[in-house]
Amino acid sequence: MWRDLSPVGRSASSGGYFRQPWASAESELRAWFAAECTSRGLVVETDGIGNQVAWWSPASGRSEEPGVLTGSHLDSVLDGGAYDGPLGVVSALAAIDLLRERGFEPARPIGVSVFVEEEGSRFGRACLGSRLVTGATTWDEARELRDRDGVFLADAVSAAGLDPAQGLLSLDRVATFVELHVEQGRDLVDRDVAVGLATEIWPHGRWRFDFAGQANHAGTTRMEDRHDPMLTYAMTALAADKQARLAGQRATFGRISVEPNGTNAVPSLVTAWLDARASTDEALAEMVALIERQADERAGRDGTSLVVTAESVSRSVAFDPDLAARLAAIGDWPVIPTQAGHDAGILSAAGIPTAMVFVRNPTGISHSPDEHAETADCLAGVDALADVLTELARSGAPE
Amino acid sequence: MWRDLSPVGRSASSGGYFRQPWASAESELRAWFAAECTSRGLVVETDGIGNQVAWWSPASGRSEEPGVLTGSHLDSVLDGGAYDGPLGVVSALAAIDLLRERGFEPARPIGVSVFVEEEGSRFGRACLGSRLVTGATTWDEARELRDRDGVFLADAVSAAGLDPAQGLLSLDRVATFVELHVEQGRDLVDRDVAVGLATEIWPHGRWRFDFAGQANHAGTTRMEDRHDPMLTYAMTALAADKQARLAGQRATFGRISVEPNGTNAVPSLVTAWLDARASTDEALAEMVALIERQADERAGRDGTSLVVTAESVSRSVAFDPDLAARLAAIGDWPVIPTQAGHDAGILSAAGIPTAMVFVRNPTGISHSPDEHAETADCLAGVDALADVLTELARSGAPE
Repeated sequence: MWRDLSPVGRSASSGGYFRQPWASAESELRAWFAAECTSRGLVVETDGIGNQVAWWSPASGRSEEPGVLTGSHLDSVLDGGAYDGPLGVVSALAAIDLLRERGFEPARPIGVSVFVEEEGSRFGRACLGSRLVTGATTWDEARELRDRDGVFLADAVSAAGLDPAQGLLSLDRVATFVELHVEQGRDLVDRDVAVGLATEIWPHGRWRFDFAGQANHAGTTRMEDRHDPMLTYAMTALAADKQARLAGQRATFGRISVEPNGTNAVPSLVTAWLDARASTDEALAEMVALIERQADERAGRDGTSLVVTAESVSRSVAFDPDLAARLAAIGDWPVIPTQAGHDAGILSAAGIPTAMVFVRNPTGISHSPDEHAETADCLAGVDALADVLTELARSGAPE
Repeated sequence: MWRDLSPVGRSASSGGYFRQPWASAESELRAWFAAECTSRGLVVETDGIGNQVAWWSPASGRSEEPGVLTGSHLDSVLDGGAYDGPLGVVSALAAIDLLRERGFEPARPIGVSVFVEEEGSRFGRACLGSRLVTGATTWDEARELRDRDGVFLADAVSAAGLDPAQGLLSLDRVATFVELHVEQGRDLVDRDVAVGLATEIWPHGRWRFDFAGQANHAGTTRMEDRHDPMLTYAMTALAADKQARLAGQRATFGRISVEPNGTNAVPSLVTAWLDARASTDEALAEMVALIERQADERAGRDGTSLVVTAESVSRSVAFDPDLAARLAAIGDWPVIPTQAGHDAGILSAAGIPTAMVFVRNPTGISHSPDEHAETADCLAGVDALADVLTELARSGAPE
C-alpha cells in the first residue's frame, strides 16, 4: 500500500508532498482508498464533500451495533511528509488485514475513515472535513471560504465532482473513534518506546495579522519618511518567537503575503499568519494578546497599522481518560499530550469517546519532506491498533 | 493622452498600475504609443524586444545629423503609480506638439523613445531594455532570466509577438538623451520649484538573500529544536533598516518568498530581496557587507544558513556636468541627485551625453498608487522639455 501512495502528489525537487484537498492528487488518493477497501470487501461510502468511510460488519446479527471507527486523512500540508495522515489510513487497513489473519470476528462494526482538508492547507480551516461532519462548522459558513487563488470552497468541491447536497457522513453509529498518527515530536524517542496514546491536544489557533503601511519608492524615500509594514512584521515575528520561548509554548509565523511584493517598493501591506499553541486556553490567550500588544506598539513607532483576526481557535481537548487508561493497559503504552490538532480532537469535542495512537518519529520532524518513521515502528503501530480494535470490538467489551 | 492611458493595466481595488513587460497591458501601451506617433507624422520603429523610437526629422537636408532622443518607459512596478515612466513619454509627445505650435524647425532629428522593462518588476533586472540596447547586458544572458512563474524571458518576448532576431534599436545616431521623470523624493518640494535637472544617480543594487532552515511542524516542534529561517530574515530586515538610517542611505526588503508558506509549518526557505542605495560605491558596498554580516551572525544562532547573491549592481552615474549646466541655465533650474535608477543612467554610462528633467512630486511618494504630480507642474515640465529640446536641436547649437 505504501508503495502505491509514495508517488502521488510528490514534488520531484523537494521530495515533499503537495496533496491539496479537492485537487488532482487528492482525487487519486480517494480512488486508491476506495479500491483498497473494495478489494477487502468493505463497503465504501463517500459523502458530499469527499469524506470517506468503509465498514467491516460482523458476519452475523450485530451489524446494527454502534461501531468502532479508525482512520486519519490523506491530504498534506504544502511540501509535507509522507506519514502525517496516510500512516493512520494505511495502518487501519493493515490492522484489519491482521485481525482477519488472526481470525478475529468483530462483535460490532469496524469502520475505516478518511476526513478531507485536515491540514487546512488550502482553505485555512484545519480539520474542515470532521468539523463539517460534527457540525462544529456549518456548510453555509464553509462554502464561503476561499483558497489563495480566490476559489470558493463550494466551487472547489463541485470541481472535484462532489455534491454537498448529497449530505455528510453520519456519526450516529460511531461508538468510539481511534486515530493512529505519526508522532510530531520526540516524546516517544525520549521514552524509547515505539507506540504511545494521547491524553490531550493543546489549545491552538491561527490569527491573521494585517500590517498596513504606505507603498513608496525603495530608493528615493528617506528612511525617516517611510511607513514600512515589513518592519512592523519583522519585529512581531521575533516577538512571537521570544514570547513562546519564555512561556514554553509555541508561536510561529510560517506564512506571509506581501503587497505589492516588488524589490524596489516599500510594501503597502504585509499579511502574516500566526500559529500559536499553549498548554492551557488561558496561557494561549495571554501569549497571543502579548504578541499583539508588542506588534501594536511597534506599529505606532513605524507609522503603520495593525488588524488581527482570529481565523480559527480550538480549545483544549482532553481525550476520554477512562478509554485512554483502558487502552494503555493493553500494551503498557505511555500516555502523552500533543500540540498538534487532529480530526480526533474534533470528534472528541463532539462527545464521541476518542483515543489516539502515536507511532515514534525518530527526529520529531513533521510537516516536512524529512518526516519519517521506521518500518519496525510502523508495524508495531499496526499491531497496537489491531489490539486496540480487538479490545473495542470484541464480544462482551464494555461500551 | 493622459486620459487614454489612465485605465490601462489599472487595478480596480487599489487604483494602482500593473503594467508588466511583455504582457497585455504593455502591448496595449505599445500600440497606443505607435498610434500617437503616427498621428503626428513620426516614423515609429519597434525593435526585436519591444523598445520603440519615433523620429521627427528636419524638413530639409539634415536628417542624417546625430539626433536628440527623449522619452521614458511605460511599464510600472507592481501596483505602481500613473506617473513613473508615462509622464516622460507623454511629456515628450506634448513637447513636440508645443515646439510645432511655436513654429520651431529642428536642425537635427528629435526622437521619442520607450524602453521596455525599466522597472525590472518581471525579470528582476532593472532597465533591461536600455541595458540590452547599450550592450550592458547581452541577449544570451537576458534570455535565461525567469519571471516569478518560471517563464523564460525569451519565451515571454516571443509570446508578445516580438522576435529578438530582428535586432535592437541602434543608438549610433543619438547625440544626446534627455529623460523627463516625476521626482521620487521631495527635493523640489523643499526648494519650492516645479522643475529640476539631475546631477547623478546614486549607486544601487539588488541582492537576493536565501535563508535556509528546516521545515517542521509549527505546533509540536519545541522552539529550541527549530531552525527557522523566518527569524533570521526578520532580524535581517530590521538590521537593514537600522544600518540605512544610521548611514543616511537606503535599504529595503520589499519582496519575499517563503517555502512552503503554510500557516502550520516552520518554513524551510525564506528568500528576500534587498534593495540598497548609497551616495558612493564604497558606502553601498560597506552597508551591504554589514547587513550580510549581521544576517550571518543571526543565522549562526538560529541554526539556519544564508547565501547572498548580487542580482544587479549599478555603480554611481554622474550625468554630463557641462550639459546639465548648459540646460539648467535655460530656466534657472536647480540640479539635484536622485536615488532612483533610470534608463538615462544606462545611456549615460554607455557614453551618451545624458540629462534628466524632474517634475515636482508634492508628497514625494512613488512606486505607489498615491504617486502624484499637479497638472500645472506637468505642464511646466512639458514647457521645460520643449525648451531643452530647442536648445539641443536648434540650428547652430553646440554638439
